[in-house]
Amino acid sequence: MTATEPAPFKADDYRARMARAAGAAADAGLAGVLIAPGPDLIHLTGYRPVATERLTLLVIAAGADPVLVVPTLEAPDAEHAAGASALTLRDWTDGADPYAAVAPLLDATGRFAVSDNTWAMHLLGLQEALPGTSYTSLTAALPMLRAVKDAQELARIEAAGAAADEAYGEILKVPFAGRRETEVAADLAALLMRFGHSQVDFTVVGSGPNGANPHHEAGERTIAHGDMVVLDFGGLKHGYGSDTTRTVHVGEPTVAEQHIHDVVREAQQAGVDAVRPGVACQEVDRAAREIIEEAGYGDLFIHRTGHGIGVTTHEPPYMIEGEEQPLVPGMCFSVEPGIYLPGRFGVRIEDIVTVTGGGCRRFNNTDRQMAIVE
Amino acid sequence: MTATEPAPFKADDYRARMARAAGAAADAGLAGVLIAPGPDLIHLTGYRPVATERLTLLVIAAGADPVLVVPTLEAPDAEHAAGASALTLRDWTDGADPYAAVAPLLDATGRFAVSDNTWAMHLLGLQEALPGTSYTSLTAALPMLRAVKDAQELARIEAAGAAADEAYGEILKVPFAGRRETEVAADLAALLMRFGHSQVDFTVVGSGPNGANPHHEAGERTIAHGDMVVLDFGGLKHGYGSDTTRTVHVGEPTVAEQHIHDVVREAQQAGVDAVRPGVACQEVDRAAREIIEEAGYGDLFIHRTGHGIGVTTHEPPYMIEGEEQPLVPGMCFSVEPGIYLPGRFGVRIEDIVTVTGGGCRRFNNTDRQMAIVE
Repeated sequence: MTATEPAPFKADDYRARMARAAGAAADAGLAGVLIAPGPDLIHLTGYRPVATERLTLLVIAAGADPVLVVPTLEAPDAEHAAGASALTLRDWTDGADPYAAVAPLLDATGRFAVSDNTWAMHLLGLQEALPGTSYTSLTAALPMLRAVKDAQELARIEAAGAAADEAYGEILKVPFAGRRETEVAADLAALLMRFGHSQVDFTVVGSGPNGANPHHEAGERTIAHGDMVVLDFGGLKHGYGSDTTRTVHVGEPTVAEQHIHDVVREAQQAGVDAVRPGVACQEVDRAAREIIEEAGYGDLFIHRTGHGIGVTTHEPPYMIEGEEQPLVPGMCFSVEPGIYLPGRFGVRIEDIVTVTGGGCRRFNNTDRQMAIVE
Repeated sequence: MTATEPAPFKADDYRARMARAAGAAADAGLAGVLIAPGPDLIHLTGYRPVATERLTLLVIAAGADPVLVVPTLEAPDAEHAAGASALTLRDWTDGADPYAAVAPLLDATGRFAVSDNTWAMHLLGLQEALPGTSYTSLTAALPMLRAVKDAQELARIEAAGAAADEAYGEILKVPFAGRRETEVAADLAALLMRFGHSQVDFTVVGSGPNGANPHHEAGERTIAHGDMVVLDFGGLKHGYGSDTTRTVHVGEPTVAEQHIHDVVREAQQAGVDAVRPGVACQEVDRAAREIIEEAGYGDLFIHRTGHGIGVTTHEPPYMIEGEEQPLVPGMCFSVEPGIYLPGRFGVRIEDIVTVTGGGCRRFNNTDRQMAIVE
């Protein structure tokens, strides 16, 4: 049941990723990239501290080796990060000015990309310490820095998807009618953990009218016979994300319910069929949306068609109108159209796919027909 | 065992807090405050979304009622926040420019305080949409906005402290020698939950040399007879924080170990004794540090003496050299000096205290003498 642990990433993997970031920054005319705690830091160094008011910042500046600035208190942890030997540590002590510690590492008139989730207080500290610098967000400047996965990463995302599929297979066997959404959500979370996830990020159980709110997680509503139920769940397994959605029905659906589900299923297939190298992200959105619009439900598909996945469960590339980024083999993202009828029910179907040389491959492979549960 | 649930905060409580923030902003010459998801948003509105690349921002601008800008997807959740009736909701849809949605709410040449943990990408989006605006971090501009607690908040922090004290009383009864730090940490977490915490933020079990790293959480080291063990644990109960530290010994300590512990205990008492209205925060740090310096261990006390606590377990005010903020009745913070002998062991003792009219009151009241465990 638990797959073998993948080989851990090595210092050389992190060294290569940091070198790639430095190259991408130079190509974009940037003086460097500045990375605060979060998924970018995990991806580039293997170090996963919690973001706080104490500055931790990876500085990848043009023409210099990477430097990780950390609070003295946290230096012993940073020294143990998998990528620590690929960078230089510099620590600063409570009471000192951490931005003054970073300043000598930066070109005082350079433009830098900062990781999206860097705390504003730290960006303001840098802007004040070096008034001649300018900044852009990492995703705005280098949106695809983590988007193209290498073979080791693909294997992990595929394994996470397979684990989510196993969880879906099991959840179909539990009783739905008469139980609260939160109870089914707890079952889903336990199943994800049983199939090797280390972290559950979301377990949406949207029954009846709750399914019409795509952001609903799981509440105290008791699921009833005749309900449509959106199940959208995922988390991290071996550091990489899963995210899949199936919409099931408690007992037999009405003709109208079956029709809506068929439209979403067809839209999801159209989205997946649109995925191949060179196609713009927005084309995936358009392909799925067109089916739903033609069926007359365009106003009820109120979100983008997909998002990337990797060391987080939501990251670039986004499958959304206006995103002209061409797809590249190795990108991984969701294709998840939906229709939401306020006050009645919702339907969403979602698979993670990866772009291949000739098209795409799904990492979620459970039946997309509407399952009947009890 | 589980205390009665405190009365929930009402829309009027949130209205009053937002009015107080508006007043503090005006007094500081600011055009308003901008609050992203996180503790400030929870404190001001009761709304607790996860921070993402989709902008959610509370705008408290001079001369206008508060507006909460949210992604359309999340509007149904925002409408259910306890403070929702005290503000106006405005939503923006995927594909639209969220900064353009915020811009009309802001004075285009104003200076704004943004919550510290606002994502840099959102601050950069605002800076670009409104190039005439300027920004400062909320903690830099209005550091004490959440620092002075009202009676309802004090009752919650006191209850959280009492629960942590109960957990400490129980952890002294578990076996230490021969078990891993992570096992004792799991016991501590379970005890915090048993005594009413909804969330455990940290359970430090630093045995022997691990105790000399004040940032160490709990690892695979097996605790041995003769070890000093730092226990530092806390989390949230009814939305407010606990945080307490005691250092225990497995079996009888040596004279040297007892001496270090006595110095830290004396320093902690001196820090607490320094707390009274009007005294600068840094005086609390100095009082504790002086004892440790006089004993010859000044170089081994490598962190500040304390931090505030409220809806988070770390927030202003900070008890640190250079912090001249005078203490005000209703402030709550830790007093937690320590001595860390690299490669050998560490000792830290920590209580949460609140400033009263005449001095201070401890919210942690377990014995500060070194307990002997087995």
